[in-house]
Amino acid sequence: MSRPVPVALLGLGGVGRAILSQLLSPPLASRFQLVLIANSRQSLSLPLPNSVPLTPSNYLPILEQHGAPLDVPSIVSVLSTHPDAPGIFIDSTGADTIPAMYPQILSMGVHIVTPNKKGFSGSSELYEAINASAYPNTTAVVLGESTVGAGLPILSTLKDLVATGDEIQRIEGVFSGTLSYIFNEFSKVEGGDVKFSDVVKVAKDKGYTEPDPRDDLSGTDVARKLTILSRLIPSTPLLPEGYASIPTQSLVPPVLADAQSKEEYLDRLTQGDQYFDDLRSEARKEGMVVRYVGVVDVEGGKVEAKLAKYPFDHPFATALKGSDNIISFHTKRYSPRPLIIQGAGAGADVTAMGCTSDLIKIHERLTTRRA
Amino acid sequence: MSRPVPVALLGLGGVGRAILSQLLSPPLASRFQLVLIANSRQSLSLPLPNSVPLTPSNYLPILEQHGAPLDVPSIVSVLSTHPDAPGIFIDSTGADTIPAMYPQILSMGVHIVTPNKKGFSGSSELYEAINASAYPNTTAVVLGESTVGAGLPILSTLKDLVATGDEIQRIEGVFSGTLSYIFNEFSKVEGGDVKFSDVVKVAKDKGYTEPDPRDDLSGTDVARKLTILSRLIPSTPLLPEGYASIPTQSLVPPVLADAQSKEEYLDRLTQGDQYFDDLRSEARKEGMVVRYVGVVDVEGGKVEAKLAKYPFDHPFATALKGSDNIISFHTKRYSPRPLIIQGAGAGADVTAMGCTSDLIKIHERLTTRRA
Repeated sequence: MSRPVPVALLGLGGVGRAILSQLLSPPLASRFQLVLIANSRQSLSLPLPNSVPLTPSNYLPILEQHGAPLDVPSIVSVLSTHPDAPGIFIDSTGADTIPAMYPQILSMGVHIVTPNKKGFSGSSELYEAINASAYPNTTAVVLGESTVGAGLPILSTLKDLVATGDEIQRIEGVFSGTLSYIFNEFSKVEGGDVKFSDVVKVAKDKGYTEPDPRDDLSGTDVARKLTILSRLIPSTPLLPEGYASIPTQSLVPPVLADAQSKEEYLDRLTQGDQYFDDLRSEARKEGMVVRYVGVVDVEGGKVEAKLAKYPFDHPFATALKGSDNIISFHTKRYSPRPLIIQGAGAGADVTAMGCTSDLIKIHERLTTRRA
Repeated sequence: MSRPVPVALLGLGGVGRAILSQLLSPPLASRFQLVLIANSRQSLSLPLPNSVPLTPSNYLPILEQHGAPLDVPSIVSVLSTHPDAPGIFIDSTGADTIPAMYPQILSMGVHIVTPNKKGFSGSSELYEAINASAYPNTTAVVLGESTVGAGLPILSTLKDLVATGDEIQRIEGVFSGTLSYIFNEFSKVEGGDVKFSDVVKVAKDKGYTEPDPRDDLSGTDVARKLTILSRLIPSTPLLPEGYASIPTQSLVPPVLADAQSKEEYLDRLTQGDQYFDDLRSEARKEGMVVRYVGVVDVEGGKVEAKLAKYPFDHPFATALKGSDNIISFHTKRYSPRPLIIQGAGAGADVTAMGCTSDLIKIHERLTTRRA
């Protein structure tokens, strides 16, 4: 068995905590050596001096008591100079600032795994700088499987299709767990007259939405995922400003565009109900349901996030349940019927799994020798 | 860019031809160097002496005219002693004899990629010998993504789930393109009274079945796939005889069990229609359709291939179309709703893609360096 690969984990929110927990558990614990954990303020070098083992339940008080102020360049330096270097830098923050450092981190030979969408869905300048500093242009690998569909094998499948010479014609899917839940409840094949505002409130109460539901309803998160997918396909539009270059339909109803706070927005949400009621009944007359989808139309040269109608027997109407994602790849090989992947596309455990499966892929790449 | 990895391709049937075609085309051609192709009788070393480039349209006459008698050990020796060794041995045969040599091939450091199910679904003795000779126990990698679901990411997803510490509870799916087509046509949500024998004949005429349709209807192919899946899950039954250890329902109707030839079988197929008619109407009374499925029930410790009934709103009833495979993974993380993968699970191009994506994974592993 090879020596464990050194790993530093930055970001200890819900996903970071789940990554930590998977890293400390049996199947992964022997392959990786956690050399450092950090939140936005403090970092903790490992192993602990008193040889107490780190666990998912003790790390927080220990970090708070013994942590040093966060210093990202010195973390990268630890990973690049470790006896078993280069190590892997896990960016589990939601920050813009860390992805801006990816080119520099990679150019020190350190690998990166991240669920953070910012680096891959922002300006094409940053995206190209990241790629220029990464495999196959350098020895450092950067992977972000969980940036789209969490633990679902979406990006790896798209990469395989492209790399083996298939031609992507169209990718179409429900990419937001929150918007999946909202429209699966609001617009059902079997009918129903629940109010849009009531569904959003239930989704918020269940913790399915961001603290400010407008962050989900703006469609920005979907546009970021579409950017990441598009950029993996040769011949798609350049998207110089990343997600901001994608036409994105906002679900904040026009009548509420002037709401000043999330409180005011939620209070006044019923004012938007007529707008969504009309959409739903118009669709129903045509035998359709309403879904919020993302589309990468390679042949048409269009990428967009929008409300769309689907017939009652379409998988987006019948097969989609709860807050699942569903993504269909229409390609030259997968034609006329697409390749479809469906399942939970959000949640700490499955998002962490997307990251730890990336860690394993890097581990395998580092421990397979040519001779 | 690293030097191309040497590759030998054994087996030039439909899938082998498609692998050859993908290997000779742009995205892959620069990563791999094809050093030899062979069918069951002859092999041809490459590049050709007259420096004519090999193409998907000229290889067959050239092989027939200039091929040397097939000698597998010398092929392996070429791959292990090549200046860019070790190379990759692609077994695209359907033979039992080649998989029996995997342990020996791997122990010479040569990697293996294969769509051939025989090595992974036969005796546990051979399976364990293969594993003992492969990564992570040695430096040689063996991958067979396309042995289940062709180009669909079934095995890679299962491996990721297991390796990241998820607990598999149940895998359930329609694993045979042929049986998918037959039952999607025979037992529909919207009803219909087509005869089983007529559907089988159409499937045969369309080329969806093996030359002898009983090879599909026996369920053996499904049992082989279930064996391959089960063996990747810790705590599943041992299956000492591989697929032969799995309870497998045959669809050759009892009344036809004594048919001596495929001709006699097809002639007399209508004698079995009553049997299937009864199954269908019994299911229909309960609001169900009939499907031929494979189940790996980890919690119950059971693996079986059988006819089963599914409610009209189940994905196996509504989402399944044509000859698609659909596989659902019920796990601790993907619960209560499973992770579902669906799409063409057979066909030369997508099966070849499963192989060439394995080739790329090995290429990445060989060209990522620790420093």
